[in-house]
Amino acid sequence: MQAEILSTGDEVRAGAVADTNAAYIAENLEAQGVRITRHTCVGDELAELAAAIEEIAPRVPLAVVTGGLGPTEDDRTAAAAARVNGVALVEHPAALEQVRRFFTARNLPLSAANRKQALLPQGATCLENPLGTAPGFCLTIERCLFFFLPGVPSEMRRMLTQHVVPELTTRAATAGEFFGTRAVSTFGLPESAVGEKLAGLAGQFDGLRVGLRVKFPEIHVRLYACGADSARVGQVLQDAAAEVAARLGGRVLSLQGASMAAVVGDLLIRQHATLALAESCTGGLIAKLMTDMPGSSRYFLAAGVTYANQAKQRLLGVSGDTLTRVGAVHEDTACEMAAGARRVAQADYALATTGIAGPDGGTPEKPVGTVVIGLATPHATEAFRYVFPFGRRDLNREVFAVTALDRLRRHLTAQDAEKSAAR
Amino acid sequence: MQAEILSTGDEVRAGAVADTNAAYIAENLEAQGVRITRHTCVGDELAELAAAIEEIAPRVPLAVVTGGLGPTEDDRTAAAAARVNGVALVEHPAALEQVRRFFTARNLPLSAANRKQALLPQGATCLENPLGTAPGFCLTIERCLFFFLPGVPSEMRRMLTQHVVPELTTRAATAGEFFGTRAVSTFGLPESAVGEKLAGLAGQFDGLRVGLRVKFPEIHVRLYACGADSARVGQVLQDAAAEVAARLGGRVLSLQGASMAAVVGDLLIRQHATLALAESCTGGLIAKLMTDMPGSSRYFLAAGVTYANQAKQRLLGVSGDTLTRVGAVHEDTACEMAAGARRVAQADYALATTGIAGPDGGTPEKPVGTVVIGLATPHATEAFRYVFPFGRRDLNREVFAVTALDRLRRHLTAQDAEKSAAR
Repeated sequence: MQAEILSTGDEVRAGAVADTNAAYIAENLEAQGVRITRHTCVGDELAELAAAIEEIAPRVPLAVVTGGLGPTEDDRTAAAAARVNGVALVEHPAALEQVRRFFTARNLPLSAANRKQALLPQGATCLENPLGTAPGFCLTIERCLFFFLPGVPSEMRRMLTQHVVPELTTRAATAGEFFGTRAVSTFGLPESAVGEKLAGLAGQFDGLRVGLRVKFPEIHVRLYACGADSARVGQVLQDAAAEVAARLGGRVLSLQGASMAAVVGDLLIRQHATLALAESCTGGLIAKLMTDMPGSSRYFLAAGVTYANQAKQRLLGVSGDTLTRVGAVHEDTACEMAAGARRVAQADYALATTGIAGPDGGTPEKPVGTVVIGLATPHATEAFRYVFPFGRRDLNREVFAVTALDRLRRHLTAQDAEKSAAR
Repeated sequence: MQAEILSTGDEVRAGAVADTNAAYIAENLEAQGVRITRHTCVGDELAELAAAIEEIAPRVPLAVVTGGLGPTEDDRTAAAAARVNGVALVEHPAALEQVRRFFTARNLPLSAANRKQALLPQGATCLENPLGTAPGFCLTIERCLFFFLPGVPSEMRRMLTQHVVPELTTRAATAGEFFGTRAVSTFGLPESAVGEKLAGLAGQFDGLRVGLRVKFPEIHVRLYACGADSARVGQVLQDAAAEVAARLGGRVLSLQGASMAAVVGDLLIRQHATLALAESCTGGLIAKLMTDMPGSSRYFLAAGVTYANQAKQRLLGVSGDTLTRVGAVHEDTACEMAAGARRVAQADYALATTGIAGPDGGTPEKPVGTVVIGLATPHATEAFRYVFPFGRRDLNREVFAVTALDRLRRHLTAQDAEKSAAR
């Protein structure tokens, strides 16, 4: 089935915000076997809204529209839909009940402006919005089923899952089709190399499509399967994920699409181990990534972000002699930083980063993009040097941080395997 | 003048990436007085590309198209443009020269695939791409001038500035119109409150438009001016920025649109002062924000990211008695953390954060969203408590971090004013 997406609103039209809603809708509908043929974005003017809806209706059997359902005068999507169908806006009892319930639950009075949100085109079906005041609706225009959803991303996402996806699943099941999707996260190979290693994968399994999604510096492999029964689709996805793991080996982070920080966190929890960090060039980014996750206090103890050499000495106990002898960006310094963080925080493991993120500070021996990573474990302290070619401070910092976490991931994974073998 | 934007490519169409190019182009063209009426996105199929171009041509006098200029078979934008105009693709000498130069400069051979990038529709004007292999081109279709630019964001942005904006400036100058734009960054008021305080601002100045852009937790005020001479436009922007400052007072971060971290960094440089951090609930985010900026080693010394109570004691010297007596989230603890970070790093200033970002850990007295900020200066140590209503871990952490930096900004700004007064 083909579908189109229409985003509305002056803030998107004029570029004050990027249209992330369209990408979200497209990705989730494509995962259900729908082919998105076009996105369109127009502003809040009634004539432009109506023109866009009128053009879409004869082209495709399904469309998702976002935005313009709020209480203000600028919110004209319902009026535009009514105009295209040549019907009136009428107060919809289910919609009014929903708006009223939202305000009652918050002990707020229902304003006339919010009451306007219950005005839907005659013939529309109201769609519940569990997170906000704006009810959505669906309406058939010509032979196209339009879903009208709010523009607030969290509300749109919830309603897409609650109202649009089930409609697609039902339609597909009626047609004897089932769809499924799965992500496998990887790190350590560029997109082109992942693509080469996965060449021919789609042809190996019935009804499988494969896509790559760059979440720099990770590459996520998206697997889409379709087939005549849901158990078979699940099996194809599982077998294909296993084949991705076989082809990419240690580059695979998670067969469930988890990020590097989540994978490292899970390994630490499983081993009842704790982590400390000593960050120079990454400037707190690894600590930020690890503590982005709820519950990270179970394993994350502390980080010393030591930009200045003196701070490396005073917070982490790096020796002044070492700094004088080899400088800040060196294996010896990285080892002392990691050992110092582990000791000070009394952690099981510690990671250290010292390097040159740029744009300045590079030398012929240590160009911008150089990072030395220290890893302290209960048994040893090691250092690893890399030079990355990205040449941009923000990209360098991201890849330095995730590379450091990858060193720990590889160590913890090996530990895990040893323990399993011993049992 | 009205214009449209066409984004092409299966990865955008299917939602693997969000279309940030369209927002960038829209914002920059609107700043030049162009009204963007519509964005469209289609995939890589020739028929769909040609249909979209054909529909746009009669609607507007100007269009910007991105994507589909690469060397692969999927790159069909030039072919689509040629088809719509009923002309052939021909090897364009200037385009070939540009592609050849790109490869020669890198000591790489010119492949047949890359040579294809020099095939442009007959009658097109080649546009230089200083950052990549794909030349752009412009071509008039019906009465619409189309700019075809690559889809790689960095290349598109450079070429928009180099080729499209000058065309607009020339057209506007010929018509006796000049455009300018300016951003004023603010923090501390929600979007709706900023909007209320700026009510009527646009009407106060000739040819002024005002827009708000949320860069959570900052709100940036965008000022757009147009007029019959460029000095006058500059004056309107300057006067309007001054009026924004008068209406919003201490909430204004920068009349040049700089971020909180950049403003704090500049103040520290101006005062030859250094900074240390003690982060608990923000988990390294403040350090990350401060060290995102090149040159931050001039003022940023160190951060102790101390999640565990023991780490607060061992890294920062917080007393165990204090932690037992009042707990981690308290003014006394925040003060000891800040004083400890300042002492250990031997910095002029230190900021500390301790709080509850959520989703768990809240209590009736200290709900999720509570943060206590410590500020240590050469003369005193103070603490400030806030409770934010966002209820989401990521938003809480962002607002905690920027609120902490705002405490330091206010202190440094007052210092600055005192010094100026003393001179």
